[in-house]
Amino acid sequence: MGKILLKSVLMQNVGEKPMRKDVLVDGNKFSKISDQVSPEMAGGAEVVDCKDFALLPAFYNGHTHAAMNLLRGYADDMELSKWLNEYIWPFEAKLTDKDIEIGSRLGILEMIKSGTVFFADMYWHREQTMKVVEEMGIRATIGVTIADNLMTEEGLNANFEFLKNHTGESERVKLSVMPHSVYAVGEKNLKRCIEMSEQENYPLHIHLSETASEVENCIAQYGCSPVELLERLGGLNRMVQAAHCVHFSDKDMEIFAKSGATAILNPCSNLKLSSGIPLIAKMMDAGVNIALGTDGASSNNNLDMHEEMKLAALLAKVQGGAEKLPASEAIMMATARVAELNGINAGLIAEGKLADGLLVRLDNERMVPCHDLISNWVYSADSRSIDSVICNGRFVMRGGHVDGEEDILKEAESCAARLAGR
Amino acid sequence: MGKILLKSVLMQNVGEKPMRKDVLVDGNKFSKISDQVSPEMAGGAEVVDCKDFALLPAFYNGHTHAAMNLLRGYADDMELSKWLNEYIWPFEAKLTDKDIEIGSRLGILEMIKSGTVFFADMYWHREQTMKVVEEMGIRATIGVTIADNLMTEEGLNANFEFLKNHTGESERVKLSVMPHSVYAVGEKNLKRCIEMSEQENYPLHIHLSETASEVENCIAQYGCSPVELLERLGGLNRMVQAAHCVHFSDKDMEIFAKSGATAILNPCSNLKLSSGIPLIAKMMDAGVNIALGTDGASSNNNLDMHEEMKLAALLAKVQGGAEKLPASEAIMMATARVAELNGINAGLIAEGKLADGLLVRLDNERMVPCHDLISNWVYSADSRSIDSVICNGRFVMRGGHVDGEEDILKEAESCAARLAGR
Repeated sequence: MGKILLKSVLMQNVGEKPMRKDVLVDGNKFSKISDQVSPEMAGGAEVVDCKDFALLPAFYNGHTHAAMNLLRGYADDMELSKWLNEYIWPFEAKLTDKDIEIGSRLGILEMIKSGTVFFADMYWHREQTMKVVEEMGIRATIGVTIADNLMTEEGLNANFEFLKNHTGESERVKLSVMPHSVYAVGEKNLKRCIEMSEQENYPLHIHLSETASEVENCIAQYGCSPVELLERLGGLNRMVQAAHCVHFSDKDMEIFAKSGATAILNPCSNLKLSSGIPLIAKMMDAGVNIALGTDGASSNNNLDMHEEMKLAALLAKVQGGAEKLPASEAIMMATARVAELNGINAGLIAEGKLADGLLVRLDNERMVPCHDLISNWVYSADSRSIDSVICNGRFVMRGGHVDGEEDILKEAESCAARLAGR
Repeated sequence: MGKILLKSVLMQNVGEKPMRKDVLVDGNKFSKISDQVSPEMAGGAEVVDCKDFALLPAFYNGHTHAAMNLLRGYADDMELSKWLNEYIWPFEAKLTDKDIEIGSRLGILEMIKSGTVFFADMYWHREQTMKVVEEMGIRATIGVTIADNLMTEEGLNANFEFLKNHTGESERVKLSVMPHSVYAVGEKNLKRCIEMSEQENYPLHIHLSETASEVENCIAQYGCSPVELLERLGGLNRMVQAAHCVHFSDKDMEIFAKSGATAILNPCSNLKLSSGIPLIAKMMDAGVNIALGTDGASSNNNLDMHEEMKLAALLAKVQGGAEKLPASEAIMMATARVAELNGINAGLIAEGKLADGLLVRLDNERMVPCHDLISNWVYSADSRSIDSVICNGRFVMRGGHVDGEEDILKEAESCAARLAGR
């Protein structure tokens, strides 16, 4: 790993005006950010002329199912039970190791192209996805998914064993214990997951209060909401990353905020599946930690964190006033907040942080005029503004191109066509 | 004007599978669409190899303020009255003819880049904008804006005279009478606008029921809602294009639906300014005609019709169920519906229609896999998928590039910086 000098790149700190800086990447970290990095310090660095670029934090996707990219557009505009029973589950039942590898590669390509360098993934055949993350140069927390209704006792034990041994973890790839939900995992195995998270220091990642019926059924079965159930089982704490959190009562918000757990909101998916609008403004007022994810491509239908960031800001404003969730805060939910949760020292462009970031084109018409760089980025730009993506001190996309993308697309198209019987 | 043959381009009709067609553009129209256009018929045509492209309808932006692109990011994350009084109006007061020309050029460049070939514009210094539309090769309906509080009697008379003479209208540029709103135009001049629309066959374009306070104030002043006021004045009919329509009562919806008027929704702007969420599902159920616009870049903060299309579909679904506003219908709201309202025989890719359309990259990762072209386009793509834009039988963008874009950006940046005192 070498050095990269981002020469005279535009940056903007919260509350300040945009300014030009030299940014030195040394190994996998930002080692120096100053008006001018000295030639001695930058010795041996590849110099990148950044007069047309801003340097902005890369995205960290707090919740997705990467390999489901194979199902993009396979079933839309229909209600949840038909969608799941007649389309999604039958398609998923056919997926082999190789399919997951191909689907994960498509998902990761899409994430890189839209500026994402990390994802928390809940799916199956995890070792395939882990392999592809290593290969493509980004970061991930890969879930070891637990679902009573879909697994034998043997399979469950094997998963817990896998977690116990930290199998396959590396610098960029970590594991997480992921009980699917309170409706797919019973009390006994929820407790095992909670213990595993505590003992081995894993994030506990779970779908929580996504739909009104999930909450109703939980109350019918357990006499309490999903949030209260997790609390009762001793499993609601700072390690918890709860995806969706659309149907929180006032009491749920209070309990959740006190626990230090984080709600990973996926507003595009929640709206598209008609699950509900997450109560972002109210959750913020209640002190709930909030971060963002995309969910899978079969319900979104992309993995673009920029869209989630803008939509989250718009929803917070319409709920709580135009001042709510300003651009600088919306960025945090899509970047540093997710990184921190997953133990990654990144998400801010600062000396000593891991060198993840985006070179964003200032000569893209949606970044003009530049009254406010951050505002343009959050409210106006889309993925077309992104020129290059840096992860762990290396370019994973450069000039809009990712190595091998043509082959990835061809393989994904033919794999998906075969699975769909086209 | 010559011929263009789009060779073997992917298309998809509603309810059908995607299929390859040859599409012949002759002059400003689609003249032939078939499995294979004969060499005789295509004689003299420029042949474009479209194996990597889909042909999709271009966007028609139902409501914007193009020159406000100069104010993009100038004032965000603040409540409406502060935003208007301290930022937007003082900035606008400084705008000269030349500034409007520069701002319009930036707005139109941005629209072309995101696939838009038409906009309905409500602003000032209209002749500058009209000139730039002609120059850049797209279409527009340019408003002659009427606002009592900002105009002298002389100015008003001059505007009505301008409309009477159809000054500056052409093949691609039409005029429209645009009373700003029921709060900025009194009964007398609203009536003059309505008469002008009837006598000269102009669309009547107005901001309507955008905020709760607009409706409250109207009730206090007139004893009825803005919709009821328009009806009472005899000005609610098929010629009406009402922007926003966020705060419609059940009775408003009933009256509006019966009248045949069209609601132009701008959901990004309405959410960002915290005006409210348009009741899309309910309006659809009530039989209200709906089309889409972006509003101006100071409240959106872009002019991307694709974002409005996806957001409208998501909001309709979360309000009315996942089946509501399917992809094919969402496209119509952003394309043919707007074109039709403005008397343009376009928006569908069909023989005899004006040749407006987009070549969308099938080798963009967000268009893969191609289980459903329309679904990928509406729910997954963004402007990066668009390779080329055709308007009136001519390429206005090709391979992602618009002639002169570099100069347009430089001029806009320096103009905006000067106006902001940077």
